[in-house]
Amino acid sequence: MRALLFDHTLSFEKDYQEPSPAPDEAIVRVTRAGICNTDLEIVRGYMGFKGVLGHEFVGVVEGGAWAGRRVAGEINVACGACEMCRRGIPSQCLRRTTLGIDRHDGAFAERIAVPVANLHAVPDEVADDQAVFVEPLAAALQTLEMTHIRPTDRVILVGAGKLGLLVAQVVSLTGCRLTVVTRHARQRELLDKWGIEPAERDALPPRDADLVIDCTGTAEGFAAALELVKPRGSIHLKSTYHGLPQADLTRVVVDEVSVVSSRCGPFDAALSLLKRGLIDVESLVDARFGLDAGLEAFEQAGQQGMLKVLLDIG
Amino acid sequence: MRALLFDHTLSFEKDYQEPSPAPDEAIVRVTRAGICNTDLEIVRGYMGFKGVLGHEFVGVVEGGAWAGRRVAGEINVACGACEMCRRGIPSQCLRRTTLGIDRHDGAFAERIAVPVANLHAVPDEVADDQAVFVEPLAAALQTLEMTHIRPTDRVILVGAGKLGLLVAQVVSLTGCRLTVVTRHARQRELLDKWGIEPAERDALPPRDADLVIDCTGTAEGFAAALELVKPRGSIHLKSTYHGLPQADLTRVVVDEVSVVSSRCGPFDAALSLLKRGLIDVESLVDARFGLDAGLEAFEQAGQQGMLKVLLDIG
Repeated sequence: MRALLFDHTLSFEKDYQEPSPAPDEAIVRVTRAGICNTDLEIVRGYMGFKGVLGHEFVGVVEGGAWAGRRVAGEINVACGACEMCRRGIPSQCLRRTTLGIDRHDGAFAERIAVPVANLHAVPDEVADDQAVFVEPLAAALQTLEMTHIRPTDRVILVGAGKLGLLVAQVVSLTGCRLTVVTRHARQRELLDKWGIEPAERDALPPRDADLVIDCTGTAEGFAAALELVKPRGSIHLKSTYHGLPQADLTRVVVDEVSVVSSRCGPFDAALSLLKRGLIDVESLVDARFGLDAGLEAFEQAGQQGMLKVLLDIG
Repeated sequence: MRALLFDHTLSFEKDYQEPSPAPDEAIVRVTRAGICNTDLEIVRGYMGFKGVLGHEFVGVVEGGAWAGRRVAGEINVACGACEMCRRGIPSQCLRRTTLGIDRHDGAFAERIAVPVANLHAVPDEVADDQAVFVEPLAAALQTLEMTHIRPTDRVILVGAGKLGLLVAQVVSLTGCRLTVVTRHARQRELLDKWGIEPAERDALPPRDADLVIDCTGTAEGFAAALELVKPRGSIHLKSTYHGLPQADLTRVVVDEVSVVSSRCGPFDAALSLLKRGLIDVESLVDARFGLDAGLEAFEQAGQQGMLKVLLDIG
């Protein structure tokens, strides 16, 4: 089958091996997939991954009890037996592999093997171009799973990239006083469209926010978050970071700031919001390519200010 | 009066100016004071402080409604009007000065001016040598104020210095499964005496602790905490850090670890535990000096493995 393979370098393969599913896995014929910043980082060496990339996808199940159903799939392949699995937190399974990220082939291919337990049926009302956003939208919703955002809270989001703009949308649904720090006209246009307040970083007063959500993944973003948060406030980390950033932990202690974070989130809630038309994901699509133009797609996705690049596969 | 002054260098002054109290301040004649790591850091340039050092003290009030009473004093001089003060959190006052740390003369002197609102009467059952520990013991208790430690939690403490050993004692009172990482025989002897389990760092399994309390103030301590904590666990920062340490924020995100912290704490609770004999502070005293030997006292306090150095003042 056709696949985008990473093994020290990224390559398009015409005849990559078909997936060989484990007993509890189904084969999904991928129709649409999205390129995430994690994919870009893997191509730069993060995780030391080898195999088919891709973990944001929608497709149709081939064979078995789910045959013919349109599905999105959770990305953590859990053992079901470790302490985290027993506690009902399979996304933190101590022995997990992860689709397209860690020791399990991913979705930038014609077919992918996915544990049946990870599948979520996509309602008819949700088009493929929306369903391909279920994974990052679920991750955005995990912000609310891990942090209690009150309607009266003053919240600032830094890092309004493709994930940050999803986080901004779900956080805005809480009714809180949200401001999103922007650097490009494109970000401001989208936020205006959604009725979310944009602001330049320098226009924001220091120590004014109950919560700062850092979607930058940079030391500068974390430093900005520390400047913007109130004493006893919270910083929510919503991105992986390049290397080991320098972090002002003394300021964290002196201001008694909490640093919380979140990773993968609830697919059902994400599908529900998409079905109800509460999240605009279509506006985030900046480009689309076929699988055979995958290298070009990655090049585009890595451009400054670029939002979502999709792969049209099936 | 006699005082230990810091103004780029530390000096003993025979004729330093008497404190001139603000209208809401009382004069306290200091009897005993303790040297804290923050004092050692100030002498290395932290905070850019100039004036009389010292913020751990016990003394007797001279004049006013509190005349003759033996007291300990909270260190944050709050404005009473800012948002944090209005929220009932004067220790985080946005306009605070701090005794011996930030724009307010401290306690390494014969007399100190202290806001009456900051005074706490010391019960007769608590000797001066114990009462001088009220400030750091209150800070240790703030760990419990900011973090819910359950009796069933697995807790590991790294950084068993003079503050860490107070934190270990208050945390052990929760009944949780506490282990303290040790490097010196002295630490192990104290912990054995208190019935708290010591362990070498290398003997502890990774990702086993619900909560790691980092009292090290070093990048290595934070890295150790990240190795020891479970996914979805917490790290409690209980120390200021030198410079901007490198911190693995990606690990924080991927494991959805919470980083919380705490600073100054409740004096009444600290006095209550001392009065009931539940905390052994006397064993932490390693040396004592007169005020005129203050420079020698600082030199001793800075030695590796040294616990509390007291100043006998009045």
